[in-house]
Amino acid sequence: MKIAIDAMGGDNAPKEIVLGINRAAQDFPDTEFILYGDESQIKEFVIDNKNISIVHTTEKIEGTDEPVRAVRKKKNASMVLMAQAVKDGEADACISAGNTGALMAAGLFVVGRIKGIDRPALAPTLPTLDGKGFVMLDLGANADAKPEHLLQYAIMGSIYAENVRKVNKPRIALLNIGSEENKGNELTKKTFELLSSLDKDTFHFVGNIEARELLEGHADVVVTDGFTGNVVLKSIEGTASAVFTMLKDVLTKNLKNKLAAGVILPDLRKLKDMLDYSEYGGACLFGLEAPVIKAHGSSNANAIYHAVRQTRDMVKSDISGTISNAVNVEEA
Amino acid sequence: MKIAIDAMGGDNAPKEIVLGINRAAQDFPDTEFILYGDESQIKEFVIDNKNISIVHTTEKIEGTDEPVRAVRKKKNASMVLMAQAVKDGEADACISAGNTGALMAAGLFVVGRIKGIDRPALAPTLPTLDGKGFVMLDLGANADAKPEHLLQYAIMGSIYAENVRKVNKPRIALLNIGSEENKGNELTKKTFELLSSLDKDTFHFVGNIEARELLEGHADVVVTDGFTGNVVLKSIEGTASAVFTMLKDVLTKNLKNKLAAGVILPDLRKLKDMLDYSEYGGACLFGLEAPVIKAHGSSNANAIYHAVRQTRDMVKSDISGTISNAVNVEEA
Repeated sequence: MKIAIDAMGGDNAPKEIVLGINRAAQDFPDTEFILYGDESQIKEFVIDNKNISIVHTTEKIEGTDEPVRAVRKKKNASMVLMAQAVKDGEADACISAGNTGALMAAGLFVVGRIKGIDRPALAPTLPTLDGKGFVMLDLGANADAKPEHLLQYAIMGSIYAENVRKVNKPRIALLNIGSEENKGNELTKKTFELLSSLDKDTFHFVGNIEARELLEGHADVVVTDGFTGNVVLKSIEGTASAVFTMLKDVLTKNLKNKLAAGVILPDLRKLKDMLDYSEYGGACLFGLEAPVIKAHGSSNANAIYHAVRQTRDMVKSDISGTISNAVNVEEA
Repeated sequence: MKIAIDAMGGDNAPKEIVLGINRAAQDFPDTEFILYGDESQIKEFVIDNKNISIVHTTEKIEGTDEPVRAVRKKKNASMVLMAQAVKDGEADACISAGNTGALMAAGLFVVGRIKGIDRPALAPTLPTLDGKGFVMLDLGANADAKPEHLLQYAIMGSIYAENVRKVNKPRIALLNIGSEENKGNELTKKTFELLSSLDKDTFHFVGNIEARELLEGHADVVVTDGFTGNVVLKSIEGTASAVFTMLKDVLTKNLKNKLAAGVILPDLRKLKDMLDYSEYGGACLFGLEAPVIKAHGSSNANAIYHAVRQTRDMVKSDISGTISNAVNVEEA
């Protein structure tokens, strides 16, 4: 198996990217890693593993670049060369911690869509209180969506949960503003009908889920349009961050509280980690000809290592082929 | 001033409703309070104030009732009689902690819309880290919305923030998935244009706000469609609740942590209260001929008291008349 990596993408590139790949290269000797980026910068950190190679380029896409334009103009950017390697069959999958929009554009225009999939979807795994997590999609690949797109999201998410996350009979839920069948806006009402018509031997639609219950682990796959998904993800992040800010204020308010804080701090750190969804690996771009993984922008070596593990599972289970078959069966 | 109150609505009715009104009746002797509900149950708690009267009815709308049908069929329900009193000019405004959907239906079908307002909007005040809070609308009165509706939400929210919350030049923001002008879905892109065209002497549109920043106090009024608003509100509630659940687990994990918890607990309780938006009063239904206030379902006497204070401010500033004028000027 060959995995292409954008060594220059993300806040901590190339150092943390390369350190993560060093560890992965040792643990997975059956996998070849191709690092795209500035060779001299990469060489500073890379261990001379037999299964790591470097493709040199000085061009890169910045976080502030306009995504589609950047992918079209910067043809030698590390991210674009990485995607091109997948397209040309030189790699089976790719990973980047860089500009999310640009990676989606590179996935769509360079790697290419699976035939029968109308819209790719961005799907991270979010945390739950029981530590199992759930796949949510679309989190922003397409702001607007039709019921047919949400149906495809459900199929792709379920296949991923079953084949990569090893969930038996993944429960698919529709994010909605009420639990009853007739609740919601035009999009969710029509989507509910479509999801109810899915082949029940293969897909397990369990109905609506409200945003209040998302972290409670009632579903393995939650589908929504990209606008709502993005807003929900950021609401969760913003609220958790606000609570921790306030908590920090309480814990450092006076000496008495500081002393008490010292006692519980190690456990509190674990709590914060539980909400850190980068622990669950990167976000997947579903619906493309090969796995394209978006690692969190602030990824450290550990996050990159887990993204590699996840990517290997996706390649081994032929996730793109399985999605392609399922979509073409459902539509036949 | 006369305020009609649904004494039977909410989890703690009629006791907490009546206790809240007792306190309000003493503090605001210029206001008459008309309680709608079961006279014998109400009399158990009511203090014989000169400015409290009771209109007896045994019919009431349950939390599980289908809203529109309940309002149409249960013509003698405490909530419906309360709304009818406003319609008939016997009261200037009304308050209920009961079934939200039913109150919206009673507002729309009994109290009636302001001419020129297409859709009423449900608008609670949500907490911010600086304790000032912001008005967000629509939080679910209408699942689907058009750009023109969001424009009206902005006008109504701004008038409320300025006249009732006493915010000087309220900053209006559009909830979106990026801060730049061209970001978003079809709805937010078109709404951005409309909001940009608002009279800049009267309304202060400051651009897009992302969900991650909502609690940071960057805006005084945030507009969004009812589906997104409802999902965001419940995401915030669900995340805060999940964090507090995990925090409780940490604090009760072992004796060492329990002892430390004892020290910081009073401050932690304050923190939880900060996130409790019922402290900011009830949610307003904007766009109706008179103020209709939805107190939180779990309201205690204190929450009801604050809802009364808020309702008085809305009546005194003639919020419905001001909205009516503004909408008809903007549309002229």
